Amino acid sequence: MYDQRLNSFREDFSNLEVDAAIIFNFENQFYFTGLKAITYSRPIILGIGEEKTHFIIPSLEEQHAKAKTNVDNYYIYHETKMYSKNNENYLDYFSQLLQQFPAHARIGIEFSTLPVILRDMIVNKGFSLVNIDQYITKMRFVKDNQELNSIREAGKLVSLALKESLNHARQGITEIELDQFGNTVLFKEVAKKHPHSTLDYFVMSPSGIARTNMPHVFSNTRLLKKPDIIIHSRQVAINGYRAECERTFFIGEPTTEQKAVFSIAIKAQNEVLNQIKVGMKASEVNEVARVIISEAGLEEYMNHRTGHGIGIGLHEEPSLRFDNELSLKEGMVFCVEPGIYVPEVGGFRHSDTVILTNNGAELITEYPRNIEHLIF
Amino acid sequence: MYDQRLNSFREDFSNLEVDAAIIFNFENQFYFTGLKAITYSRPIILGIGEEKTHFIIPSLEEQHAKAKTNVDNYYIYHETKMYSKNNENYLDYFSQLLQQFPAHARIGIEFSTLPVILRDMIVNKGFSLVNIDQYITKMRFVKDNQELNSIREAGKLVSLALKESLNHARQGITEIELDQFGNTVLFKEVAKKHPHSTLDYFVMSPSGIARTNMPHVFSNTRLLKKPDIIIHSRQVAINGYRAECERTFFIGEPTTEQKAVFSIAIKAQNEVLNQIKVGMKASEVNEVARVIISEAGLEEYMNHRTGHGIGIGLHEEPSLRFDNELSLKEGMVFCVEPGIYVPEVGGFRHSDTVILTNNGAELITEYPRNIEHLIF
Repeated sequence: MYDQRLNSFREDFSNLEVDAAIIFNFENQFYFTGLKAITYSRPIILGIGEEKTHFIIPSLEEQHAKAKTNVDNYYIYHETKMYSKNNENYLDYFSQLLQQFPAHARIGIEFSTLPVILRDMIVNKGFSLVNIDQYITKMRFVKDNQELNSIREAGKLVSLALKESLNHARQGITEIELDQFGNTVLFKEVAKKHPHSTLDYFVMSPSGIARTNMPHVFSNTRLLKKPDIIIHSRQVAINGYRAECERTFFIGEPTTEQKAVFSIAIKAQNEVLNQIKVGMKASEVNEVARVIISEAGLEEYMNHRTGHGIGIGLHEEPSLRFDNELSLKEGMVFCVEPGIYVPEVGGFRHSDTVILTNNGAELITEYPRNIEHLIF
Repeated sequence: MYDQRLNSFREDFSNLEVDAAIIFNFENQFYFTGLKAITYSRPIILGIGEEKTHFIIPSLEEQHAKAKTNVDNYYIYHETKMYSKNNENYLDYFSQLLQQFPAHARIGIEFSTLPVILRDMIVNKGFSLVNIDQYITKMRFVKDNQELNSIREAGKLVSLALKESLNHARQGITEIELDQFGNTVLFKEVAKKHPHSTLDYFVMSPSGIARTNMPHVFSNTRLLKKPDIIIHSRQVAINGYRAECERTFFIGEPTTEQKAVFSIAIKAQNEVLNQIKVGMKASEVNEVARVIISEAGLEEYMNHRTGHGIGIGLHEEPSLRFDNELSLKEGMVFCVEPGIYVPEVGGFRHSDTVILTNNGAELITEYPRNIEHLIF
């Protein structure tokens, strides 16, 4: 799988007008090698030449990297007196790595990620730079079957966890306690069904009118009260691949205004889920939601796109955005999550993950969307 | 607090030979403004001029940023048709932000973080670049009282969570289940004692001889068995500031060899905790552990430094490393964690967090280190 991706990339070297590449974005490193480190406070750098691959790895990740990846050439940098006799650091090895590339080579780099310190070293060696951001982003657009299977599993897991948290929704518990119910069942399920897997997850439950209006905040210790509005938002990644599920729910009776906005948010999401398909433009998908929200007089309260791609990244391209003219393809995976954020009323967002197939959109997350299932 | 940091930075502009700065590293953004976003998939950029500060913020973070920070000038970029009439993106705003700086200004940037795409825009406008990585790193070395109080709280919380997980250690549960016991008590404690706080945490429990030899791996669904060796590793951050506590423990009786290596790992950590103090060099601290491990014939199995700074970052400078000649100062905070990783025997590492004061090292994490408390 990784070899196939590398080969496919190399076949495009001449079209891209590159002779080699440096990959610094850790999602892209995972895509090409399977290595996902816990922390990147010690830099990791991947070099891809015409023939060989090269990894600059801190010694702490040496065994992990060698177990997980099939890279040709490892440069291991150390931080102990015994092994680090020449006080070499990752930059010394980066200099050595660059010497593996032919003189005056054109080096593909991620302009959006590569830091200046590495950029300068490449340029100072007489190499030229080519931006491969868009190329790699596009490679990752369409998922292969193995990726899709992981994403489907992630969809089941995130749905299970969301359901468990919502089953325990009640006044008097905090946002982080609400999260915790779902986390516990998630861990148990993974332990039981997915031995030898790696699990990642993200969860947040902003509650109350003010906090639901801030779409991205860490859960905190605010107590849920009656009445209350909460956006419960979850992602789960199994073996590096993600799915997302989110529901807006109420404790106690929502106000008339909240019910009205809720119904529009649900209608917009339902319609997008019904219509999204291969061949549609991303902007057209966005437009389905925008028109519904606009006709309800709420367009001024939309402050983000209708959805985004998902896979290795929390958010990845393609974006379901008004200005994205890309045609959707089989194997793309999207979170569909139109949001409406009304000051003094609340934030409303529901997210589900779909895989596009030639037989239609496959919904891989589930929880009821009708309001009677979302009042506790 | 943030104004004080900004002013202190500005006072050094002339020494640094900069006229303005662009801050892209999110830890540094938090340090100067108090803003910590959930995700940086939509870029956030901080500009610091002689007089004013400027923030480029995605609209999703607008309310959050305005609630948390006191920046003079916000550039909000949108992603919806209604608000994004000119299809402006963060790069357009970056161009506008740069126009706030005087012609030919010398711009301080983080060479280790700023991506090429922004670097090129700065250079193309006729500005010059100055590397301020080290300067900001050094600013963050010494914590103020407010930071230290958060770190002390984090120390209590991480110790509590570690104790709870170890209380439940037994054969037949998975690594992630072990983690979960501590997480649950952590969430409850924060809910009770720290309302209106943000909580972050990290936990991993590599188990078995092979996995304890890989210092950084995600917990997975491996079942703990009898006998077994586990490194339980935790960090907790409260309101953005962190502490760390880690213990190596056993289920069932360790082998004679494991006991021997364990006792050296404990002795090395104990001695460092006893000796670390203001005025000592970082390299001397590292040497205390190295000598003990070396005299036991185990130096070849040390593969990382004795410790690292901690604060906003999981790992931050100063590093307790053999080649770091920095003298330690009051208000620095360190994780002391000499590690010994012996193939076929296991990995052994214990970490505690200390604050350096002029009255000695204040240990802010706790769990017994003698072997009888670490066999379950």
